Amino acid sequence: MPRRGRKAALADTTPKRQVNYRQLKNPFPPMDVFSTDEIASMHEASLRTLEELGFRVLLPDAIEIYRRGGARIKDDMVFIGREMVDAALKTAPKTINARAGVRDRDLKLELGSLIFQPGAGAPHATDLTRGRRPGTAQDFRELVQITHHFDVLQIMPPLVEAQDVPTHLRHYFTMETQLTLTDKLPFIYSRGAPQVQQSFEMLQGFRGLTDDEFAEDPWCFTIINTNSPRTLDIPMARGLIDFARSKQLLIVTPFTLMGAMAPITVAGAITLSHAEALAAITLNQLANPGAPVCYGTFTSNVDMKSGAPAFGTPAHFQASLAAGQLARLIGLPWRSAAGSAANLSDVQAANENQFGVWGCLMAGATVVIHSAGWLEGGLTVSYEQLISDVEVLNMVAELCAGAKAGEAEIGFDALTEVQPSGHFFAVAQTMARYNSEFYEPILHDYANFGTWTERGAKPAQERATKVWQDILAADNRPAVDGGRVEDLNRYIEKATAAGGAPPES
Amino acid sequence: MPRRGRKAALADTTPKRQVNYRQLKNPFPPMDVFSTDEIASMHEASLRTLEELGFRVLLPDAIEIYRRGGARIKDDMVFIGREMVDAALKTAPKTINARAGVRDRDLKLELGSLIFQPGAGAPHATDLTRGRRPGTAQDFRELVQITHHFDVLQIMPPLVEAQDVPTHLRHYFTMETQLTLTDKLPFIYSRGAPQVQQSFEMLQGFRGLTDDEFAEDPWCFTIINTNSPRTLDIPMARGLIDFARSKQLLIVTPFTLMGAMAPITVAGAITLSHAEALAAITLNQLANPGAPVCYGTFTSNVDMKSGAPAFGTPAHFQASLAAGQLARLIGLPWRSAAGSAANLSDVQAANENQFGVWGCLMAGATVVIHSAGWLEGGLTVSYEQLISDVEVLNMVAELCAGAKAGEAEIGFDALTEVQPSGHFFAVAQTMARYNSEFYEPILHDYANFGTWTERGAKPAQERATKVWQDILAADNRPAVDGGRVEDLNRYIEKATAAGGAPPES
Repeated sequence: MPRRGRKAALADTTPKRQVNYRQLKNPFPPMDVFSTDEIASMHEASLRTLEELGFRVLLPDAIEIYRRGGARIKDDMVFIGREMVDAALKTAPKTINARAGVRDRDLKLELGSLIFQPGAGAPHATDLTRGRRPGTAQDFRELVQITHHFDVLQIMPPLVEAQDVPTHLRHYFTMETQLTLTDKLPFIYSRGAPQVQQSFEMLQGFRGLTDDEFAEDPWCFTIINTNSPRTLDIPMARGLIDFARSKQLLIVTPFTLMGAMAPITVAGAITLSHAEALAAITLNQLANPGAPVCYGTFTSNVDMKSGAPAFGTPAHFQASLAAGQLARLIGLPWRSAAGSAANLSDVQAANENQFGVWGCLMAGATVVIHSAGWLEGGLTVSYEQLISDVEVLNMVAELCAGAKAGEAEIGFDALTEVQPSGHFFAVAQTMARYNSEFYEPILHDYANFGTWTERGAKPAQERATKVWQDILAADNRPAVDGGRVEDLNRYIEKATAAGGAPPES
Repeated sequence: MPRRGRKAALADTTPKRQVNYRQLKNPFPPMDVFSTDEIASMHEASLRTLEELGFRVLLPDAIEIYRRGGARIKDDMVFIGREMVDAALKTAPKTINARAGVRDRDLKLELGSLIFQPGAGAPHATDLTRGRRPGTAQDFRELVQITHHFDVLQIMPPLVEAQDVPTHLRHYFTMETQLTLTDKLPFIYSRGAPQVQQSFEMLQGFRGLTDDEFAEDPWCFTIINTNSPRTLDIPMARGLIDFARSKQLLIVTPFTLMGAMAPITVAGAITLSHAEALAAITLNQLANPGAPVCYGTFTSNVDMKSGAPAFGTPAHFQASLAAGQLARLIGLPWRSAAGSAANLSDVQAANENQFGVWGCLMAGATVVIHSAGWLEGGLTVSYEQLISDVEVLNMVAELCAGAKAGEAEIGFDALTEVQPSGHFFAVAQTMARYNSEFYEPILHDYANFGTWTERGAKPAQERATKVWQDILAADNRPAVDGGRVEDLNRYIEKATAAGGAPPES
């Protein structure tokens, strides 16, 4: 054991650990689940699907864009030739510079970069003090603050639905919250052109950008889910067009559950997902060649006994790997997802989410969505689970930082200094690195059984409550320009008075 | 949703999923934490440590073997030349065929193979029905039965200490339990020559082996921990010699906690661990060239605030990676370890153990020790945590089995069969694979929130109790030859009457 006095004295003088979690590179060697030939066959089957079976598109404007791009149209069915897909993949950028509220939160999206996002889009929120409830404005606001706190969550997703805010005004609330409580890349739902347009205006105004500046790089992102199998609905098609035209970031994600909305096999489900992603990317690039777009997938299996979705399973892991191989084939940045089917923050939730995260990491995903706090297959975001999953993400970020093995680290001197059966607590190498060598957990506790029992014998999932409560109490929000907040509020007041903008579907 | 009638009818006729978990190959691409040059420097520093700083050896017989092998001796300090290490690494086998009680549990240990073992060597046991207590014979017996049940735990370790059995008779009890309740590769503690010799005799007799057969391949294993830094105590040195002479499997594991018994850096701690492992392997090979020996490490960090050991941390993960690079350098099969510092089966335990397991997997460990149920940094084995960690190991084993993407799996026919926005529940591809496509969890539950609440709203760690209780109730023990059991019991009676064999230290 180190001498207390010496340790206390040194604690003030030795540097604390500092690791940049804001921009990560994926250090894990990519893993293949299929051979190169198998991947080529899947790509070919996807192209054949688009050419021969077609894609149902519900938005007439989108059908028209496909038609002008060379697609064969029959009613609402669009048949897309491979030359159209090839052209889209040529114009889609391989590197995207996404701009946040401050420069050191800007993100470069390309194969090899690594971005985490907590669970998103949930109708419910849950925590151990207030229980499970339909999401509210307060929940959204709190979860934005908690997400803002952790550098390892580099972008801001639509955590829970603020169901107590009317749908025609909700985008004002979510935009105002994201702009004033965080400076991370914000999310905008694709719920029709009016909401999207107004959200762009609020964002552009708040960031103080000219039209050219706003269009140069993306300043926000949206997620586009196809309706598998082979359907693109109105708001999603609208989003693919509107985000393309404003050159804002769009992440395409077919949500394909093996055995339900997709074939039961990993190969079949990913073939379908790939076809749908290619169709969506093609529309996006036809609407504005060169617009920033991420390839994506979210493919897991259902439990064939009940039809219930499962996450963090071996099939989910393999689906991420297969999607990663296809992403590398087409060269685009891409997203995958983790998450859990568990009904509360427990060992199952921890197991499943981490297993899914490793699938994304070894698949080389650029953006890992739903990587913290996402329970019930997306029906709930859990405050406590968000904290405990962030612990894992922080540890992954530590691995991204790597380690050194130079002369100082190998430290033959330290080995010389300590006699057989001695200890290294007091050697110079230890003392110089006392405060900085190891990751300090936010939740995990190394107290022994006796001490832990005296402190109340709390499991980690219960200790997590205090972690998020402390974050909310600290209320560390970014500095904002008061004038811009006033402008934003004026915009919202005026738009509200004018009747708001209902979602379109 | 599938039609119930059709599904029920098909459930009887379609094949159930069958995946061999008994012999695994590691499918994960190995990850390097250090450059080739850095690893070469660490290896060099390890050799220099053995040559210049020396290794303290407490057993005179062992010192004598080192001396005859060419080491310089000064009192109890042994200085080992690199030519001695080189010679040992030349004679140590690169492939070891370990023989279990039945042929389909035999194991090939070499770089690339993958073996899991649950938590071992704990003084305490814990479960949710009986609480935490000092380990007893009943605990040992139950944990052997639970370990036996899961194919993914391929070898049988010394789970908990049966502290209600006198130490001079304990090896009779553990051997009898391992031989009659499981047919997996058994463990023998190196607690002095008399216990080891008697354990070998019990094993050889029970398996019905001639002396030549017993010596041809190993039929049991032990773990040798050095006393870091740079010390080898009497029973460990004895084990290195006795297991070598009987050609039984020995796994060398320096247990080096960064910042405590080892340097604070990953590079320094692994350099020390590597030096100690090489010293132990050298003794083993000097005692009997060609004896089966595994390289190994167990290196994690302490919490520098309290000195408490931590597991499943980024530093632990990196230490596994570094050890894997050194194992590949010397070409030997090797062990690493997972485990948790948590005080009960909770989200921390799940997070840490899985994180540590991934470190071992990406490091290419041949044997992953303490990969299920190991809490409090080894002070307790938890029944519930064992179950929930096995869930993760099973999922890893599923990944080892891989996936196919042939014509049948890609299934263009299935894609053709389903209309846009339709479902795949009823297509031929789904029906043919209904029972066999997906891993079925032992603990994880996919019920929705309503159903799960109706069933009692139990977290996974509580549901795990029923899983192990059901295993014990089923009591599926292997078939044993009644005559051999009688012989074994006679041997034990006689040896007990003769006074047993106390451990030596």
